[in-house]
Amino acid sequence: MSPIADAECYGAECVSASTTVVVVGAGPSGLMLANNLARFGTSVVILDDRPDKTSTGKADGMQPKTIETFKQLRLADPLLRNGAKVFDISFWVKLLHSKKSSSLTNFQESTTDQPMRRTGRKLHYPDHLVGASDPYILLAHQGMVEEVMIDDMESRGVFVTRNARFTSCSPVDGMDQLQIQYEDTATNAIRTIKADYLVGCDGARSKVRSFIPDADLEGEITNAAWGVMDGVIDTDFPDLWSKVALRSHSAGSILLIPRERGMTRLYVELSSTGGERVDKAKATPEYVTQRAREAMHPFKLEWKSVEWFGTYVVGQRVAKRFMDPSAKVFIAGDAGHCHSALAAQGANTSMHDSFNLAWKLNLVARGLAKSSLLHTYEEERQKIAHDLINFDVEHCKAFSEGETALAKNFDDNIRFIAGFGAEYTPGTLTRVSSSPCRIQAGMLQLPAKVTRYIDANPVDVQLDIPLLGQFKIYIFVPELRSSLSALNVLCEQLASVLGELTAHADRSFEKHSRGHCSSDDFQQPQRYNTVSNIFTLAMVTKSSQSEFEISELPEMLQKSRWSVYLDDIQATGCTERWFGNLEAESIGMAIVRPDGYIGMIDSWDMAKVAATRAWLDSYFLSFMA
Amino acid sequence: MSPIADAECYGAECVSASTTVVVVGAGPSGLMLANNLARFGTSVVILDDRPDKTSTGKADGMQPKTIETFKQLRLADPLLRNGAKVFDISFWVKLLHSKKSSSLTNFQESTTDQPMRRTGRKLHYPDHLVGASDPYILLAHQGMVEEVMIDDMESRGVFVTRNARFTSCSPVDGMDQLQIQYEDTATNAIRTIKADYLVGCDGARSKVRSFIPDADLEGEITNAAWGVMDGVIDTDFPDLWSKVALRSHSAGSILLIPRERGMTRLYVELSSTGGERVDKAKATPEYVTQRAREAMHPFKLEWKSVEWFGTYVVGQRVAKRFMDPSAKVFIAGDAGHCHSALAAQGANTSMHDSFNLAWKLNLVARGLAKSSLLHTYEEERQKIAHDLINFDVEHCKAFSEGETALAKNFDDNIRFIAGFGAEYTPGTLTRVSSSPCRIQAGMLQLPAKVTRYIDANPVDVQLDIPLLGQFKIYIFVPELRSSLSALNVLCEQLASVLGELTAHADRSFEKHSRGHCSSDDFQQPQRYNTVSNIFTLAMVTKSSQSEFEISELPEMLQKSRWSVYLDDIQATGCTERWFGNLEAESIGMAIVRPDGYIGMIDSWDMAKVAATRAWLDSYFLSFMA
Repeated sequence: MSPIADAECYGAECVSASTTVVVVGAGPSGLMLANNLARFGTSVVILDDRPDKTSTGKADGMQPKTIETFKQLRLADPLLRNGAKVFDISFWVKLLHSKKSSSLTNFQESTTDQPMRRTGRKLHYPDHLVGASDPYILLAHQGMVEEVMIDDMESRGVFVTRNARFTSCSPVDGMDQLQIQYEDTATNAIRTIKADYLVGCDGARSKVRSFIPDADLEGEITNAAWGVMDGVIDTDFPDLWSKVALRSHSAGSILLIPRERGMTRLYVELSSTGGERVDKAKATPEYVTQRAREAMHPFKLEWKSVEWFGTYVVGQRVAKRFMDPSAKVFIAGDAGHCHSALAAQGANTSMHDSFNLAWKLNLVARGLAKSSLLHTYEEERQKIAHDLINFDVEHCKAFSEGETALAKNFDDNIRFIAGFGAEYTPGTLTRVSSSPCRIQAGMLQLPAKVTRYIDANPVDVQLDIPLLGQFKIYIFVPELRSSLSALNVLCEQLASVLGELTAHADRSFEKHSRGHCSSDDFQQPQRYNTVSNIFTLAMVTKSSQSEFEISELPEMLQKSRWSVYLDDIQATGCTERWFGNLEAESIGMAIVRPDGYIGMIDSWDMAKVAATRAWLDSYFLSFMA
Repeated sequence: MSPIADAECYGAECVSASTTVVVVGAGPSGLMLANNLARFGTSVVILDDRPDKTSTGKADGMQPKTIETFKQLRLADPLLRNGAKVFDISFWVKLLHSKKSSSLTNFQESTTDQPMRRTGRKLHYPDHLVGASDPYILLAHQGMVEEVMIDDMESRGVFVTRNARFTSCSPVDGMDQLQIQYEDTATNAIRTIKADYLVGCDGARSKVRSFIPDADLEGEITNAAWGVMDGVIDTDFPDLWSKVALRSHSAGSILLIPRERGMTRLYVELSSTGGERVDKAKATPEYVTQRAREAMHPFKLEWKSVEWFGTYVVGQRVAKRFMDPSAKVFIAGDAGHCHSALAAQGANTSMHDSFNLAWKLNLVARGLAKSSLLHTYEEERQKIAHDLINFDVEHCKAFSEGETALAKNFDDNIRFIAGFGAEYTPGTLTRVSSSPCRIQAGMLQLPAKVTRYIDANPVDVQLDIPLLGQFKIYIFVPELRSSLSALNVLCEQLASVLGELTAHADRSFEKHSRGHCSSDDFQQPQRYNTVSNIFTLAMVTKSSQSEFEISELPEMLQKSRWSVYLDDIQATGCTERWFGNLEAESIGMAIVRPDGYIGMIDSWDMAKVAATRAWLDSYFLSFMA
C-alpha cells in the first residue's frame, strides 16, 4: 500500500478511500506520473476504465530523450532487449506516371516504367546535431512500455485500479480536498475517493479536462487522414528495416517504421488526390493496403500477418489550460495536446508532461515547496505543447511537399524530435546565469561519460544518480588540490542555504518514506541521499584519482562519495560540455532539477565562492517552503 | 517438455524416463550445459540433490569472457543491472612492526606506528592488454547466475529435477544407452532413467567421476587455507569499492572484493605465520574477522551484517580423464579441476567446460557429427584445466611473495584471468592456416563494432549472431564491387561442401526443433539460419552502405542479410583486427565454432577463391558425419 493512504476494501479489491493524488488513465502519461509518485513516496491511486493494459497498436516510438528517461528510471532494459532500434531514415519518391488505376483488381494488371527511387538514406539522429547517447527510435509497443512501469510500480506496492471510469470531482466543503467519483464498470457501482490532487491522463477526449474551467482544446482539425497498420510484411523492398518516408504522386505518402517481432508499422495517407477527406467507410485495411501497394509498386507488398488497424484524422490542438487556478486539478498527455503521429512524438511528450509534474506534486504535497511551484507545470508544458504543434504543422506540410522540404524539416527540428530540444524559457525554475556557459537554464543536462572515483566505474553522468525526486547539485572543480579551501567555503554555503530545508525534508521522509522495491537493495539509492533528501551533491573534477583522497574533501563531499566523478574519459569532457573553458582557478556549479533540466548554472573565481550563498538562496527560496 | 523425451509422471513431478543427456548437478557448469542443450533442441534431464538453487556464498565473480558469453546467450541483463562491477585493483602493504598480538582481546590494546600504505591502484583489465568490451569483474552471487539460466531453461520447457541424488550408471545391455539411477531424497525412492550421455557437473567430490575409469584427481593439496566471509563492512578504509590485495607481515594476506547489495567478500589467509595449517576448530568467523582487523589496522573493520562464512584448503588438482573411452560419460567443472578461489576463475572455467561440450553433444546426438568429435572436449578442456592449475600455483605464490611479484603475475596472466587467454592448441577443430592472420585457430573471436547493413544498427560482431549451436562463417570483403564474382564462386564452394550436411541437418531440426521460448519472437533467431542449420553465413565489408544493394549479392548472402556488416565504426576495424592488412583484391574467411573459437582462418587472392572448397572440405569432413 502507498504510505500515506488509508485503505478500505471492497470485496477482493483494495482501494484507497483517501489518497494524495488520483491519476485518471493508465496509459504512458498516467503510468509515468503514478510510477514517479510511488517512487517518491507520495500516495497515489490510478484509475483506468480498461480491464487490462494496451494489447496492440497505438503509440510505439520512444525517442532518444525518452530512452534516457527510462534509463534514469532503471526501466529501459526489457525495452532495449525486445524493441526494434531504428537508426536511419530512407527517403523514396515515385514520379508521376500516365497509366494508373485505383481499383485493386485493375491494379494487378497495371504496369509502369516509371522508376521508384531512393533519394537518400541517412542517420536519423546524427551525432553532431543531436549528441544523444542512444541515437535511435526504439520501437516497443505501448503495452510493453506500460508493462515495465506497472511492474515497477507494483513492486513498490501500487496497483492500477482497473474497470474504473472516472465520472466527476468536486471540492470537499471546508477542506482543501477533492471528492472524486468513479464507476466500477464491472458492477456499475459508484465509488468515491478523497484526494488532494486530481490529474487527468485520460486522453484526447479527457473527462477530467471538463472539470478545469476554460480548458477547451484550441486549434485546427485538418482533412489529412491516415490509415495505420501493424503486421509482418512480405516484400522485396530493400529498406524495410529503416524508417522510410515514401512520397508517391499517384498514391499519396507512405511511412514505414520497423517494429519489434519482425513487424512493420505502415502509415498510409488517406486523403484523396484532390485533398478531400476519404470516406470513413472506405478506410478499410484492404483499402489502406491497396494504396500502399500502389505506392510501393514495383516492389511487392503482402501481409504475412496483421496485428492492428486504425485510422486517424490529423488535428493540431492544445488545451487552453493544463490546470485549474487553485492548482488542484491537472491534465497531462493527450488530454492537453493532440497532433499527428508522423514524427512519433505523442507518448514521448505525454510522459514528459508527467515527468515534469510528478516531482512538483511530491514536493508540494509534502509541504516542502510552495503551492505556486505547481503553476510552473502549466507554464513549462504548455510551451512545449505549442512547440510541438508548431513543429507538427510544419512537419506534415513538409511531408506532402517532398523530400527536400522533409529533409530540411528534419534537420531543423531534429533535436526537438529527439526530445532534447524541448526547452523551457526563463522562469522560477530556470534562472538565467550571469556568466556564459555552454548549457543554460531550461536545457536538459547533457550526456557525458565520467569515472566514478570511489570504484573506478565509468558511468554516464546523466544516468548515474538515481531519480529520487531530489535536486542534483554538481560542483565542477577543474583542479582539485588548489580548490580545497574554496570547496569548504562552498559546502558551508550549501549547508547554510539548504540546512533547514533538509531538516524539514528529512522529517517528511522519515514519516512518509520513498517507495521501496526489492531492486533497491541492488541499486543502493540510499548512497545518494546521505547529505539531504532535497538534493544529491556531486562533484566533477579534471584532477586524477591519484591526486586526492576522499578523506581530504569537505565532509559534505565525503558523504557524497558515490557522486564524486573524474572527468577523464572523453576528449571533450563533461566540464567542457557544460562550461566551455573553465579555468583552473574557477569553480562551476549547476543546479539540476529532479527532471534533469538545468535550473541554474554559473561559475565563480575561487576566491569569490562565498557569493554562491546568495545565488543558491535566490533559486531555492523562491519556491521552496 | 524436451522434444526428444518420453515422459513418465511420478506423482506431481514429471520426469523423463528416457532422454538424450542426463546432467548431474545444477550449479553453474550443469546449468550452462542443460541450458545450451535446451536451446539446441537436445533432450536433457538435469538432476540436483539440493532442494533449491544456491542461496548464499560460493562462486560469485564473472570474468570479462564470461560476461561476453552471457551476453551471447542474451542472459546478461539482470546480472549487469544487479551485480557490482569491479574495474580496478588496489595493492596495499603493511610492514613488519615489533609489537604484535594475535589474540583478539590483546589486539584491542595494541598500537603501532607502522604505516599501512597503498602501493598501487590500477585498472584490473587494461585495454591494451585485454581488449575486452566488458573490462571488469562482475560480482553477482552464484544464485543469481543460476537463476538466469534456470529461468531461461524453464521458458524452454526444461526444469531442474530437485532432491535427486545421482547414485549410479551402467550400460544398457545390447543398446548404446546408459541406465542412470538416482535417489529422490524427499521419499528415498530410487528412480531410473535411460540416456545416451551422462555428464557429471557434480563438483569436486563428483560421484559421476567414479564411473569414468582412471579419472582420479591428480595434483597437490597445500597447507594454504583461507577463510571467506560475505557481508556489509563498516570501515574507514578508502578502497573498499575496489578489489584490494593486502599483504601484511603480521596477519597474512587479505583479499577484499566488492559485491552486490553493498556487500564485500573478504578472503583471509588462515595459515599460521610458520606455514602450518590452522586448526579447523579455530577457523571461525570471529577468528577470521580478527585476522582481517589486525591486517587492516589502523583502519576500522566492523561487520554491519554477515551473510556467509566458509573456509577452504587450496588444492590444485586435475582429473586424469574428463570422459570415458566410449564417449558416453563426462565430467565438467569442479568435478574435473580444483584450485584456489583467489583469481575468481572457478565458475568461469566450469561454465566454459560445458559451453565447449554442449554443442558437440548436440551435433553428435543428432547424428550430424562423428562421435570422435566428443574426444576434442577432453583434449581442449584438460589443456585449459592444466593452464589454470599452473597459473593458480604461480598466482598463489605471487600473492604471498608481495606486490611486485603479484603485479607481475597479473600482467603476465591478465588475458587468461579475463578468460580470453583460454586458448586451444591445433587439433581437429582448430586448424592452423597457411597465411598469417592477426587471430589464429584456437583463439576466441575478437570483439569489434560493426554496422548491420540491413537496419544501420551498430552492433558487436561477437554478439550479434545468436547462439544456435551453429558454426559462423565470416567472409571478409575489403572492396565489395570488385569482389562480386569472387563472392559468387565462394558461395558455390560453400553450397557444394555444406549442401548435403545442411540437408541432413534441416531434416534433424525439422524432427527435433530448437527449444523455443517467448523471447525468441523478439530476438528473431530464425533470421540467422535461413541458409543452413549448420552454419550462419556472415559478411564484413569495408565498402560503404551506399556502394551496394543486398540484391546484388549472391543468393546465399541475400538470404543472410541480417549478418551483412559494414566495417565502418572503429579506426582499427574488424577486418584489421582479424587479418591485419587485407588487400582490396583479397577475400578472407573465418570459420567460427559454435562456442566462439576460431576453427580456421585464411585469406585468398580473389582469383583463387575456388581453393576454398578444399579448405572447407578439410575442416568439416574431418568431424561432420
